[in-house]
Amino acid sequence: MYYIGIDLGGTNIAIGLVDDAGRILHSDSVPTVKERHWSEIIRDMADLSKKVVADAGHSLEEVAAVGIGCPGTIDKVSGVVVYSNNIVMDHVPMAEEFRKYIDLPVFLENDANAAALGEYAVYGEGADSFVFMTLGTGVGGGIILNGKVWSGFNGAGAEIGHQTLVFGGEPCTCGRKGCLEAYASVTALINQTKAAMEAHPESMMNEYAAKHGKVNGRTSFECARAGDPAAIAVRDRYIEYVAEGICSIVNILQPEILSIGGGISREGETLLVPIKEYFAHNDYNKHMAKTDIRIAKLFGDAGIVGAAKTAETGMAE
Amino acid sequence: MYYIGIDLGGTNIAIGLVDDAGRILHSDSVPTVKERHWSEIIRDMADLSKKVVADAGHSLEEVAAVGIGCPGTIDKVSGVVVYSNNIVMDHVPMAEEFRKYIDLPVFLENDANAAALGEYAVYGEGADSFVFMTLGTGVGGGIILNGKVWSGFNGAGAEIGHQTLVFGGEPCTCGRKGCLEAYASVTALINQTKAAMEAHPESMMNEYAAKHGKVNGRTSFECARAGDPAAIAVRDRYIEYVAEGICSIVNILQPEILSIGGGISREGETLLVPIKEYFAHNDYNKHMAKTDIRIAKLFGDAGIVGAAKTAETGMAE
Repeated sequence: MYYIGIDLGGTNIAIGLVDDAGRILHSDSVPTVKERHWSEIIRDMADLSKKVVADAGHSLEEVAAVGIGCPGTIDKVSGVVVYSNNIVMDHVPMAEEFRKYIDLPVFLENDANAAALGEYAVYGEGADSFVFMTLGTGVGGGIILNGKVWSGFNGAGAEIGHQTLVFGGEPCTCGRKGCLEAYASVTALINQTKAAMEAHPESMMNEYAAKHGKVNGRTSFECARAGDPAAIAVRDRYIEYVAEGICSIVNILQPEILSIGGGISREGETLLVPIKEYFAHNDYNKHMAKTDIRIAKLFGDAGIVGAAKTAETGMAE
Repeated sequence: MYYIGIDLGGTNIAIGLVDDAGRILHSDSVPTVKERHWSEIIRDMADLSKKVVADAGHSLEEVAAVGIGCPGTIDKVSGVVVYSNNIVMDHVPMAEEFRKYIDLPVFLENDANAAALGEYAVYGEGADSFVFMTLGTGVGGGIILNGKVWSGFNGAGAEIGHQTLVFGGEPCTCGRKGCLEAYASVTALINQTKAAMEAHPESMMNEYAAKHGKVNGRTSFECARAGDPAAIAVRDRYIEYVAEGICSIVNILQPEILSIGGGISREGETLLVPIKEYFAHNDYNKHMAKTDIRIAKLFGDAGIVGAAKTAETGMAE
């Protein structure tokens, strides 16, 4: 059987037809236009789902279920988006509304949890525990235990970016101070880069940013590769923040695999090698097998695949 | 049926005969004398087990299994203590050795995990998720998910005292800097109290400590109750450290119940009320049911009851 995976983002609605192995047969996207009423967004989700299935050369009869990865707080049982501030939604009956257009079982999951499930399903090698950490605009994540998403008794957990890194430190988007997200997100890295550029007018980062029209998450990494001392300092400090957060989450959960995704993860070994080095010295566990830390592989597809896997696991329960 | 619960500590071996409901029928203890060879300690554990069962007016035929809560890293499958630095043990085949004296199934668990299971079994109300946090010499803990201890793929997890609170902060016993344990343990509180006493020679804490012959975990709490400003500052700051750590663990796991145990938990409402206040304002979850934070109730019995429950759940698997 096939599953429709819908990755509902603030910018685009990305939809794919996915098989049991987590392969995307065909996918497409349309702009979310998130300012619209949610009923219009959901109608577009259904329309594009039909188009994707048809364009893939299949029919809805071959589809077992639909999964939707959605930002915000989800009530999985009722299929309601309880709250989202990215796409503004307050108690939206998303599953029920979607089924007005396509009469298939619909399963909702928080987008970060769904992406974790996607990465786990395809590259998790059946690990008994798997943590997915995304270094993007924020620091998000998902926890998979015994093959299932663990998000707490209320579905609001796995907010691994909102563990403290510096008590009383930088303000975080969540209202607290010093969360990991305030140090290890791309947003935070850009702020760290800008501060270093100001403190070091001679740094190559100033020239690089001017040439590219802006400072972004690659500025410090690129200039560090070219040997710029200020950039190396920013990059190495940033990696320490990430590694420290990883040590904390591993000390708590000791997952078999911890997979790093999000924009920064495209740095690959540049990011992974020093993280593993830091982890080897700082992990509390000195006597048992160690968590396998790796770079995620699905990249942009994790959302679609994870939504489809949400549908698949939902049907199996 | 009954279970023998053995709480193997650095100071005492405490053993109880426990029924299905987690009630201790009878218990007793002997000094561990931890400098001895482990085989002598295990022999004493077996001797005292027989005595406790007899003194309770029962026989070993009525005992289904034996559970041992032990410090350090445990290989539950093989019943081996892989490593402990409290009672020095390195790959000790504890279950096998114990069965030379008493031929019953023997199940091992890390002591903090066992205590968590004990508290959960008696006062957890069948919650789907339960975190036990002990504020003692260190900050320990246990995680119970779906009625079972969660300690990671390698059994080394649930080290909730070793999440970062202050990146690069106070040295921790684990070798890292800035762990929650380095701020929220009784040891840390005593250091914080001593520092405040030195900075404030006029503080009542100096007199109180002289009268009691030492500074302990109650010094700041008692003097704060009497209105001493320096003591109030120490106590309130300490409680903030604990509350901040609780926010982080809840953001990650969103357990249905988080139970606070260990020596400091005897402060009861003095500790709990401000923690709940802090949590209400700092929990990332604003839209779903909230974690119920409470003070643990088993106190010193959690170890024995948890060891017995380790045996009971071991037999059920």
